[in-house]
Amino acid sequence: MPNEDRTESYVVGVDFGTLSGRALVVRVSDGAELGTATCAYPHGVVDSVLPGTGQQLPPDWALQVPTDYVHVLRTAVPEAVRLAGIDPSDVIGIATDFTACTVLPTLEDGTPLSETAEFASEPHAYVKLWRHHAAQAQADRINTLAAERGETWLPRYGGSISSEWEFAKALQILEEAPEVYAATAHFVELADWIVWQLCGEYVRNACTAGYKGILQEGEYPSREFLAGLNPEFAGFVEDKLEHRIGQLGEAAGRLTAEAARWTGLPEGIAVAVGNVDAHVSAPAAQAVEPGQMVAIMGTSTCHVMNGALLREVPGMCGVVEGGIVPGLWGYEAGQSGVGDIFGWFVKGGVPPEYHAAAAERGVGVHEYLTELAAAQPIGGHGLIALDWHSGNRSTLVDHELSGLVVGQTLGTRPEDTYRALLEATAFGARVIVEAFADSGVPVTEFIVAGGLLRNPLLMQIYADVLGMPLSVVESEQGPALGSAIHAAVAAGAYPDIRKAAGAMGGRTIAAYRPVPANVAAYDALYAEYRLLHDYFGRGGNEVMRRLKAIRRQARA
Amino acid sequence: MPNEDRTESYVVGVDFGTLSGRALVVRVSDGAELGTATCAYPHGVVDSVLPGTGQQLPPDWALQVPTDYVHVLRTAVPEAVRLAGIDPSDVIGIATDFTACTVLPTLEDGTPLSETAEFASEPHAYVKLWRHHAAQAQADRINTLAAERGETWLPRYGGSISSEWEFAKALQILEEAPEVYAATAHFVELADWIVWQLCGEYVRNACTAGYKGILQEGEYPSREFLAGLNPEFAGFVEDKLEHRIGQLGEAAGRLTAEAARWTGLPEGIAVAVGNVDAHVSAPAAQAVEPGQMVAIMGTSTCHVMNGALLREVPGMCGVVEGGIVPGLWGYEAGQSGVGDIFGWFVKGGVPPEYHAAAAERGVGVHEYLTELAAAQPIGGHGLIALDWHSGNRSTLVDHELSGLVVGQTLGTRPEDTYRALLEATAFGARVIVEAFADSGVPVTEFIVAGGLLRNPLLMQIYADVLGMPLSVVESEQGPALGSAIHAAVAAGAYPDIRKAAGAMGGRTIAAYRPVPANVAAYDALYAEYRLLHDYFGRGGNEVMRRLKAIRRQARA
Repeated sequence: MPNEDRTESYVVGVDFGTLSGRALVVRVSDGAELGTATCAYPHGVVDSVLPGTGQQLPPDWALQVPTDYVHVLRTAVPEAVRLAGIDPSDVIGIATDFTACTVLPTLEDGTPLSETAEFASEPHAYVKLWRHHAAQAQADRINTLAAERGETWLPRYGGSISSEWEFAKALQILEEAPEVYAATAHFVELADWIVWQLCGEYVRNACTAGYKGILQEGEYPSREFLAGLNPEFAGFVEDKLEHRIGQLGEAAGRLTAEAARWTGLPEGIAVAVGNVDAHVSAPAAQAVEPGQMVAIMGTSTCHVMNGALLREVPGMCGVVEGGIVPGLWGYEAGQSGVGDIFGWFVKGGVPPEYHAAAAERGVGVHEYLTELAAAQPIGGHGLIALDWHSGNRSTLVDHELSGLVVGQTLGTRPEDTYRALLEATAFGARVIVEAFADSGVPVTEFIVAGGLLRNPLLMQIYADVLGMPLSVVESEQGPALGSAIHAAVAAGAYPDIRKAAGAMGGRTIAAYRPVPANVAAYDALYAEYRLLHDYFGRGGNEVMRRLKAIRRQARA
Repeated sequence: MPNEDRTESYVVGVDFGTLSGRALVVRVSDGAELGTATCAYPHGVVDSVLPGTGQQLPPDWALQVPTDYVHVLRTAVPEAVRLAGIDPSDVIGIATDFTACTVLPTLEDGTPLSETAEFASEPHAYVKLWRHHAAQAQADRINTLAAERGETWLPRYGGSISSEWEFAKALQILEEAPEVYAATAHFVELADWIVWQLCGEYVRNACTAGYKGILQEGEYPSREFLAGLNPEFAGFVEDKLEHRIGQLGEAAGRLTAEAARWTGLPEGIAVAVGNVDAHVSAPAAQAVEPGQMVAIMGTSTCHVMNGALLREVPGMCGVVEGGIVPGLWGYEAGQSGVGDIFGWFVKGGVPPEYHAAAAERGVGVHEYLTELAAAQPIGGHGLIALDWHSGNRSTLVDHELSGLVVGQTLGTRPEDTYRALLEATAFGARVIVEAFADSGVPVTEFIVAGGLLRNPLLMQIYADVLGMPLSVVESEQGPALGSAIHAAVAAGAYPDIRKAAGAMGGRTIAAYRPVPANVAAYDALYAEYRLLHDYFGRGGNEVMRRLKAIRRQARA
């Protein structure tokens, strides 16, 4: 029925991850995913040597090269359109999401300083990736001063501003490369920079401006506060940061002729305001109502949830008005290590026989361990782990914490430890869910997105530990589909994100249901987790902090 | 010089271990080791199926077959003599040492009940190996009642009688197989049973009678106490246990004609009183003076030390007059898991690349990990472990404890955890050494024997953690050489064990010296170990105990 087909329109969502970008072509009417293509960043993550210079980077640095993102627009977008088999002229909008806080100093016109002859060999002129952790000293000073001054924005971030965020990273540039700081016209989130490249307009999206840029109810941190950090930093907001704010789902502008050439899409189509990979996933999971928490579970987990009310949840990453959808308070929390911990264990803690047995059965080691672990009764391994190998983001906000396993015997097997690690992350999620409930913004539905969906044992453990049914997102491309939904709204195909999510998103409600006997068994183990959690995480024994200090000193 | 050779005389020491027996031919004049042979027990450790019956054994059971030990006398002894190239007629004595508490019910003449037609298919009629742990319920009742009654012998055992020892094992037989108990004429330590086979005399050695049989200053636990455990058990001491005591180094008797045929040794030579593998090692290490602690480090560690004074050291395994050499108080302490923990980690926690790299370099995985671990600065791995994978024998006397590792990050490598485990056992040894010092019987020299001597990194860690020089035994066959020394004394070649040890034993004094900077670095880590040790081991958080209970329930 070619006539009917001709009435369909399409949108493109592009998800910019840590290592690659992915484009997805989606039908506006029902969210059907028609074609997708991925493009790895040519320079990947720059964390040891600066390209073209041979210059060694210090520890904890993580940079990227901004032209890599444009490369994704030029390759993955046309390829996805080609694979979708649609007529590009039927595409009505494009939207993007990005890792955050990933930031870049630019000239007035958006040109990255790293692309100028003057600063091409200056590391501070490059994109600082979200996981650039070399601004911890600056973050510490921000937190100390904010607490001293009783800054009202501090509790909006669970009491702690991260070294990953805009102010810490900008202050590091000022103090370590003042000439780069001086040459910076705009300090730009890549979520906004990529939109700027597409439509020629610089619009700061409400999501990153709020979560990463400390914009609360229209106000940034004050000149007085910034001067207290460093007199030269007093004008940072007005000189380099503040700019027009765009609400999520709005159009930031129209696709330029140049960007139309890159992407093969029609000039003049809607380009949506930028967004963050986690937050943009909520509409893809049809999770835009208050109390619906989406957990995007991958190497780490990001939790996003809307609330009708403003509450200060201890240890959350942030609460931002319109941070997920306009008109609601968007809450964010996180677990620093989830899939990363499982991956670390599989890479470094599983003996050759297990690898051989998995290979013989034609499954991966994760899958093999999962099968063995699934055969155990709850509590049968006798272990409790703390899932702090990458520190604890929520609710303790302490990256000096570390991992722990207790209960090992000479009979402890790899599948036992593996299962204990799976469970530890579920316990960590329960601590977060309980913190929201205790703060008056209860979680009424827990919806999982992200790669770890693939592990049904893990999903059942989460349902049993949380004691609530688990919904799961239907799309395997949550962020890219979420971006496509935003593109459809920006193009005017739907009146708002909620309506678009209802038509284009999808979730399976109660895909996993808690088993009452399992819930009871896990309640006992969770009590043990909480006891260890509070002892090691709340000052009972600061051994983790001391061991990290000893380690730093020993290695120095 | 054949004439000189003809004036030499020789002794044979036979060490009965958990899996095999080893015979060693030693020259009396200087302790030179001339020939050795090992024989694995044909039935090994019987812990799943009773031989010849197909009968499944319950968990925690560990039996042996007594004829296996005679097999060692018939094969390993003549083979060692042959390899030594000596004339058997120049052998003047034989002595044996055994695992303990390893016990057997016998008829009046020493025939094992398991060798009778009536009881051949009754598990309780067999040898209960030291690590038969199925009498825990009986041990618990012994300890509770002894504490209630204020039995004065209880503190001589660090406040706790082990489920491994004679009374718990005998009470289990009474209560689970009363017909076996009724048929038992003697409840015999294998250390004494093997001597009985050699010389036809049943003599209870002072060592096992004291450490495992609760004989203190000539008295066993009273009828009243035993009746309180079970009225049928009231007569256990007088009916089945008590017998003539032999002091260490005495002759129990003379080699019988039958045993001479088995061994190829001259009929009528001295057969020494029996002994325990750990305690017999002290003279081999020339460690028979007060304050010289010998640590026999293998899968577990046993610490033995003489003292001039009787002191009650918290958590020691026992203090026995003449328990190591006549005339001194013999102290024993232990760490339940040492090499076992390293072995568990290497078997189950090291990935294929490490195995491959070790193989490529032609070394074992232990050696490879040790090399990598040795290259680290102290504290560089950021970890602390508790070495309780097999529970804690001294000083906490709690087998419900379990292992722990704290400080893991995504950067933690196998060599990091391996080193942390090595260090944990050193910290555990320091706790024991400090307990002796605090109780007024200070350790003045720490002497290492056993297989773990082969790891120089481990030895240096012990020197640095203990903050004292480490002496090491020279013989690789500590127990068998110790037995040979006892044989020489029993044969009258030396007036006492001390003199014989001076001539025949050997140690390298201060083979490893503490490095002051390392000692300081380890003091800081030991403080962390102690904090965790006391929190998890002394009631701060009984999570380990609860996890074991949950595990038992889950598996039931």
